[in-house]
Amino acid sequence: MKKSLLALAALTAFAGAASAQSSVTLFGIVDAAYGHVSANGNSVTGISNSGINSSRLGFRGVEDLGGGLNANFWLEGQLNNDVGQGSGQTTAFDFQRRATVGVGGGFGDIKFGRDYSPSFWNTTVYDPFGTNGVGQSLAINMISRAAAGNAVNGVRANNSLSYFTPGTLGGFNAQVMVAFGENGAAATTVAAPNAKKANNYFGFRVGYAAGPVSAHFAYAKTTGAATATDTKYNNIGASYDAGVIKPIVFWGTEKAGSGAKVTGLLIGATIPVGSNEIRVATSRYDIANSANDFSKFAVGYVHNLSKRTALYTTYARVSNKGAQTAAVANNGLSAGAAAAGGGATGYEFGVRHAF
Amino acid sequence: MKKSLLALAALTAFAGAASAQSSVTLFGIVDAAYGHVSANGNSVTGISNSGINSSRLGFRGVEDLGGGLNANFWLEGQLNNDVGQGSGQTTAFDFQRRATVGVGGGFGDIKFGRDYSPSFWNTTVYDPFGTNGVGQSLAINMISRAAAGNAVNGVRANNSLSYFTPGTLGGFNAQVMVAFGENGAAATTVAAPNAKKANNYFGFRVGYAAGPVSAHFAYAKTTGAATATDTKYNNIGASYDAGVIKPIVFWGTEKAGSGAKVTGLLIGATIPVGSNEIRVATSRYDIANSANDFSKFAVGYVHNLSKRTALYTTYARVSNKGAQTAAVANNGLSAGAAAAGGGATGYEFGVRHAF
Amino acid sequence: MKKSLLALAALTAFAGAASAQSSVTLFGIVDAAYGHVSANGNSVTGISNSGINSSRLGFRGVEDLGGGLNANFWLEGQLNNDVGQGSGQTTAFDFQRRATVGVGGGFGDIKFGRDYSPSFWNTTVYDPFGTNGVGQSLAINMISRAAAGNAVNGVRANNSLSYFTPGTLGGFNAQVMVAFGENGAAATTVAAPNAKKANNYFGFRVGYAAGPVSAHFAYAKTTGAATATDTKYNNIGASYDAGVIKPIVFWGTEKAGSGAKVTGLLIGATIPVGSNEIRVATSRYDIANSANDFSKFAVGYVHNLSKRTALYTTYARVSNKGAQTAAVANNGLSAGAAAAGGGATGYEFGVRHAF
Repeated sequence: MKKSLLALAALTAFAGAASAQSSVTLFGIVDAAYGHVSANGNSVTGISNSGINSSRLGFRGVEDLGGGLNANFWLEGQLNNDVGQGSGQTTAFDFQRRATVGVGGGFGDIKFGRDYSPSFWNTTVYDPFGTNGVGQSLAINMISRAAAGNAVNGVRANNSLSYFTPGTLGGFNAQVMVAFGENGAAATTVAAPNAKKANNYFGFRVGYAAGPVSAHFAYAKTTGAATATDTKYNNIGASYDAGVIKPIVFWGTEKAGSGAKVTGLLIGATIPVGSNEIRVATSRYDIANSANDFSKFAVGYVHNLSKRTALYTTYARVSNKGAQTAAVANNGLSAGAAAAGGGATGYEFGVRHAF
Repeated sequence: MKKSLLALAALTAFAGAASAQSSVTLFGIVDAAYGHVSANGNSVTGISNSGINSSRLGFRGVEDLGGGLNANFWLEGQLNNDVGQGSGQTTAFDFQRRATVGVGGGFGDIKFGRDYSPSFWNTTVYDPFGTNGVGQSLAINMISRAAAGNAVNGVRANNSLSYFTPGTLGGFNAQVMVAFGENGAAATTVAAPNAKKANNYFGFRVGYAAGPVSAHFAYAKTTGAATATDTKYNNIGASYDAGVIKPIVFWGTEKAGSGAKVTGLLIGATIPVGSNEIRVATSRYDIANSANDFSKFAVGYVHNLSKRTALYTTYARVSNKGAQTAAVANNGLSAGAAAAGGGATGYEFGVRHAF
Repeated sequence: MKKSLLALAALTAFAGAASAQSSVTLFGIVDAAYGHVSANGNSVTGISNSGINSSRLGFRGVEDLGGGLNANFWLEGQLNNDVGQGSGQTTAFDFQRRATVGVGGGFGDIKFGRDYSPSFWNTTVYDPFGTNGVGQSLAINMISRAAAGNAVNGVRANNSLSYFTPGTLGGFNAQVMVAFGENGAAATTVAAPNAKKANNYFGFRVGYAAGPVSAHFAYAKTTGAATATDTKYNNIGASYDAGVIKPIVFWGTEKAGSGAKVTGLLIGATIPVGSNEIRVATSRYDIANSANDFSKFAVGYVHNLSKRTALYTTYARVSNKGAQTAAVANNGLSAGAAAAGGGATGYEFGVRHAF
């Protein structure tokens, strides 16, 4: 099987018009910060990663098959660059951020592999902090944060099959994913009644993005395991780019079976200052039938040195009620849980470089 | 964020005639499938990887040293792309598919590192399914599949030193490998009498490939450990490309000490259909002095969208005798063992993209 | 060593003069050897890696920000290529050799992440064998080699922040690093009195390198853990390239609290022979208030086939006194500890290829 040169030297040299769009791309982000987090009288100072963008290294490519068809792949892994590791602070490099192969065309795209859950996208797209760093929205895996629950497929799903609408629908776009828990009837780790279906995922996201307007709704269900508690996600987000300010709203809920339910509401904005940006967000997390709610406030500034490189700073504070102990955290620093009903704060000064 | 393309700008710019053949190549395959396997009343449906080609990511290069000499390296790791992992379903990325550095020239090639065992090549080259996916030959590590035995070095060997004949011998080719178990006399995990030699490997492969004809013989021995049961491999394969069909035959045997012995026989063919291909294979595995034999039948179709991208489907069935419980499996799905003397089936629909 | 390739087609195409220096580079070294080590009547023969240069794979880049400023990143991981692994003989690939992101300019460079400790550089720069292979200096982590101690940050430090002087100071150069242990007050693994500060690192290196002269001093302290035994490093090295020979001297000491102290002294040289090189070093390691000292002698030859590729051989012998059991080791082979007061030897024949 003929291999392509890293460089597109080969492709460029041998390709005719039909494959003019074929390419393989190496890409990545290295984002590190000096940061400080504190909670319950404890505090930790040090270096964290992924303060405003998730650090990553990836390889992706598109092959023009002719007739409007293309084949494509995407392999992308996380970097815990503060300690030179991959997907965790003590875990080597892998491709768990995304590993897909697919075929696309006028009909849209079909992709196989590990990919983002449709129900995650609104959480990050409609968060001024992109679910990164101390400022990030806490609307990810809200139930497993707050109580027992099923966080499988909360951000990404293994063994998935997705369909994406093409970019030719006048701003309308949608995606649907099914993902397989891959349990057999005799799976020893999963008891009846859900045995074979445990961790199966179905989700979709549908919306509109054109000009200054962006709005999307998503729904998903991850089938529960032994306790038969399916986790259901509903969320919606919208933003409007008014030029001088882009207000952002997110509302989402997670339910586990007939019991736990957490609802998150975020209101924020990004405000351009020349080529730079101020970011602000306030969010509230309501735990059903409980006084243990919590909220978060975050503000940040991104100073762009170029399109690829930025300096930034972010400050955030979490406030808890009742017995709640939610904390501010980022990738690489943790001061542990807040005191019950107490607060937690964090800040960071960092640099993000993309390539 | 705009990503940068990679090119061999440096090489292209600085390379003169002498190093015109110097290059570094990024290469890979991402192969994923929707599949189903069943055995003993159990079944699993989901996404698997490496249905017709092993998913991989690699870096390799050749440096022209002048005078007909070259230096070369090869670093290649496995992808479990259905779950975004590397060499296993829960193992990060490494270079265990191949990691060699070598020097080549008119005399042939010498390579150091981790590489394929010569005794493995016939198993995959003379399998219409290339030892991939549900259709794959079961003639790999036959003894460890069927009974206690030593599968070390069955496919690849660590700490190896290999010699390969040059490509100038009119179709004749051979390779020899020694690999070191690297045990000391005091190795606590290995008892006498083989202590120091345990897991040492010696193997060679010799054959002919030119025009429509291909035929190779291989022999290897892995020195046994505490029980002093050396594992010996003998296998032979041949194919003849008649244009409308390419029949393929493989026969191989594995022996562990004076005890276990398993013999595999595969008869198959690939049949071109335009630029596409039908694949079929039937194989039998005879366990010496035992009624627990098993056999396999597989058929597949590969629809090439380009030289790099294909859609495919494969169906396979394993039949067991006596107490045998062999199953159909692929990379990513398992329904467990078959019932004793029972059957097992599998199928998959996939896409393979190479870059 | 010249690194090759991979530059940015896109950047090159779209970049004007201001970003002419922007690039992303793929680089690496694959170094493997046939080797033998023996100690205490035991011996092991096999294939090792990193005989004269540490095997590695990396990605690095520089973005020209204009105005003399640049942004840069460096991601580099170790290769145990004799077994196809990454940072260990059974550990997958990561970026623990170096993972930094930084901003540079006329003022120098600031880098965040995991990087070499300033106190390590003299150990490797002033070792004719570059702390690689059987010939390597044993002046790394001398205390943890010889007695209880703290080897954290001995070679590299996680969570570090470094400053490097610019290359415009007429040969003078310096670097300073702080690195964070990132312990909270309540860290359960670290007791008072050092609790929060445990594993914090401060170090600097300052020196001169111009023309034939090179000389550097380094100091560092890693704060101790439960036992409050800070580890302090002082070392100095110098070399003078007289053309026909380059003599090299290194002296260094490690102290743990008020107790353990080890001092190493190395005298060596590299001797060019045409484009090739002879390397020789003798070193002594004195353990304070103890008769358990040890010493090492090593000699090697490097035959350069090109700037990127070399064949080499190295021989080394360690001699112990009293109850000392220090051995010769390399990456991939170990014959265990020497007999108390006994000797240990090793040799290897290898090939190193850089790309």
